[in-house]
Amino acid sequence: MSQAASAPKPSRPERRPSLLDETILAPGAVKINVQGAFIVDELEPQGENLSEDGAQHNTRGIRLPHHTAVVSHVALDIGGSLAKLVYFSREPNSQELGGRLNFLNFETDRIGQCFEFVQQLKTKQQTLNGSQPGELCVMATGGGAYKYYDDMKKVLGVEVLREDEMECLIMGLDFFITEIPWEVFAYSDTDPMHFEEPREDIYPYLLVNIGSGVSMVKVSGPKQYERIGGTSLGGGTLWGLLSLLTGARTFDHMLAMADRGDNTTVDMLVGDIYGTDYGKIGLKTNTIASSFGKVFKIKRQGESEAEDGSVLSNRDPQRADGSATPERAFAPEDISRSLLYAVSNNIGQIAYLQCEKYNLERIYFGGSFIRGHRQTMSTLSYAIKFWSNGEKKAYFLRHEGYLGSVGAFLKRQPRNWGRRNSFEESSKT
Amino acid sequence: MSQAASAPKPSRPERRPSLLDETILAPGAVKINVQGAFIVDELEPQGENLSEDGAQHNTRGIRLPHHTAVVSHVALDIGGSLAKLVYFSREPNSQELGGRLNFLNFETDRIGQCFEFVQQLKTKQQTLNGSQPGELCVMATGGGAYKYYDDMKKVLGVEVLREDEMECLIMGLDFFITEIPWEVFAYSDTDPMHFEEPREDIYPYLLVNIGSGVSMVKVSGPKQYERIGGTSLGGGTLWGLLSLLTGARTFDHMLAMADRGDNTTVDMLVGDIYGTDYGKIGLKTNTIASSFGKVFKIKRQGESEAEDGSVLSNRDPQRADGSATPERAFAPEDISRSLLYAVSNNIGQIAYLQCEKYNLERIYFGGSFIRGHRQTMSTLSYAIKFWSNGEKKAYFLRHEGYLGSVGAFLKRQPRNWGRRNSFEESSKT
Repeated sequence: MSQAASAPKPSRPERRPSLLDETILAPGAVKINVQGAFIVDELEPQGENLSEDGAQHNTRGIRLPHHTAVVSHVALDIGGSLAKLVYFSREPNSQELGGRLNFLNFETDRIGQCFEFVQQLKTKQQTLNGSQPGELCVMATGGGAYKYYDDMKKVLGVEVLREDEMECLIMGLDFFITEIPWEVFAYSDTDPMHFEEPREDIYPYLLVNIGSGVSMVKVSGPKQYERIGGTSLGGGTLWGLLSLLTGARTFDHMLAMADRGDNTTVDMLVGDIYGTDYGKIGLKTNTIASSFGKVFKIKRQGESEAEDGSVLSNRDPQRADGSATPERAFAPEDISRSLLYAVSNNIGQIAYLQCEKYNLERIYFGGSFIRGHRQTMSTLSYAIKFWSNGEKKAYFLRHEGYLGSVGAFLKRQPRNWGRRNSFEESSKT
Repeated sequence: MSQAASAPKPSRPERRPSLLDETILAPGAVKINVQGAFIVDELEPQGENLSEDGAQHNTRGIRLPHHTAVVSHVALDIGGSLAKLVYFSREPNSQELGGRLNFLNFETDRIGQCFEFVQQLKTKQQTLNGSQPGELCVMATGGGAYKYYDDMKKVLGVEVLREDEMECLIMGLDFFITEIPWEVFAYSDTDPMHFEEPREDIYPYLLVNIGSGVSMVKVSGPKQYERIGGTSLGGGTLWGLLSLLTGARTFDHMLAMADRGDNTTVDMLVGDIYGTDYGKIGLKTNTIASSFGKVFKIKRQGESEAEDGSVLSNRDPQRADGSATPERAFAPEDISRSLLYAVSNNIGQIAYLQCEKYNLERIYFGGSFIRGHRQTMSTLSYAIKFWSNGEKKAYFLRHEGYLGSVGAFLKRQPRNWGRRNSFEESSKT
């Protein structure tokens, strides 16, 4: 066991299923100091949820109880869909020393809200972290660091330092893997959060960062990384298509629908084609042969019947509104589940193949796509296990969405923050 | 140059763009004999198009001018969406000896039409190919060979011999590669049909068979093959999702829409995120970062405006019917193009990665997905070229949809049909 075990008040999350949601959607407060870090199951005082307003305030942060030095920067990772903010705050009302890292995200389309929030931090910064007025600096990464660079400087009136996206991602991930206990976990249906201990011998590994699109980065050592591929079929694809197909208006609504859905009404399974399995080549009856493969024929049957004057309204007896147009013959829940499977399976397969090409065994999934959703993690884990015959392993993170922003934050960290000094090279006090 | 050059009347298709459509949708008559084979640009006498009726009669066949022996079998490859039929017929009204292989496909959902057609062949078989009444035998492959086995025997009253799907696919492909000139071609936008000469040193290669789903088969030698993977994101996915999203009712309508569409209205490009390229890691401004990545935000903006009472009808000035609901803000053409790109790119990338894993250089695309469609071939070719830095090569086939059925047909071929005797091992007279 690492030093984490000897730290005060270590509190491992209980293994009850509902914890998965709580600990990812609210990734948990993690105390960091040079003697060790541990998770406390403690709600953040100012934990209001702003999601109705376009911002999602993750209600738990990472605690830095022994950190007393002035912090005069915040970090922003502005992606295609979400802007992820990390900032430090002291806790003036707390008995404890130090402070915490806070995590918030905003929709990139409403970046103005994010800037407003940073503006507030700027005015409050003396109370928050002791820095002088006007000292605030924004560490920015992600595509939006370029797209919104002028806006940020103009609106906020602060210095903006841009950092490379991939470098920040890797730096943030290395920090979480090596420093934060009960951050990294493997998923299985029977043990949804099987935590990995922080470790130092982490290289090489594959980072699969799933946001609107997907980047795959081979990491061979500290600051040694290469973007080896990716796919345009990512979170943006799932959310975009599902918003068109189901009328759902939030990511979480789509995921909730997927939970209730049955993909076999829209997917063509091996059994639908063969009437049985195709054991000779290892395809089971319930293997998905074609995602949405049943839709075209069912839809056209419906249209033919409509043209023939057949009654259509009985095709979908679940609907009370009688709106059984052929399009409505498919339940939004079933469509959601099918597309979630398709996108997750596909990412899993490509990740596996990249691992084969580059001889990697460990895969970390980051980005804001997974959101602690069981089906998603189950599908990704299964894909990796299936394709690799169990030889490769999928890992998830409680702060999955904040790799880039934490990395950018750490680019300007006080010296020797890392317990294992994993970031001494890049420290700038 | 192979023996094909010395064969009588060799006729290479002219290089005019429209030829691409003609030669794939109607793959062309190919004469086969032991001295050589060549393509004749000759329409099939009975070339009626039955597609309105659920069957698509490809208007050209493969001619077997020197074949005079009795043929008493037909071959059927019944997939998830299409049933592909190959049969031999003499040409009683022709001055020439021999006959031709005919190619038809039926929708699997209307398999009854296919059985009716075979029933007609059975009654006409003496005229057609000299076999005795009652002698007809059906060589069946594909999943439907199992699912419809009892039906076939009962309805047709004939012997049905089932053959393994993968084995038939490979046998058919080997036949086309090794025996048929001007069958296999590489695609580029400037030279859409760059034909490959028939060759014998064909192994190893990767077959990517794209039907409703996608199978990838590594072929190391005659009858040496292994299904190494595939993806459920195939033709069924494209057709299913597009039929829901665009109202298109035929594959060809969808492809025609994709030709006119602009994917950048729905796809999130690197430039949309960065405002520029991300040259450091080789991502260009117009690289697709997220397929359908713009949809969610645009759709929700539309909904917010609708709730605010803003006028929506101007969002899509192209539409005359005023039906500018948020869903209609996206042109079906743009959606079609985006999804075609997404599915084709994805297949291309996975095919490339499988080639890397198994050290393969040549990729043959088969199945009924491509249909001679330029954008599809362009995307697949580009994906292979892009990912492999030009080291791997994509090939297409004029009879792409009939690999399995031709393979099944050849399982019961007269001895020494193949010019290069590539099938002597499996010949059964």
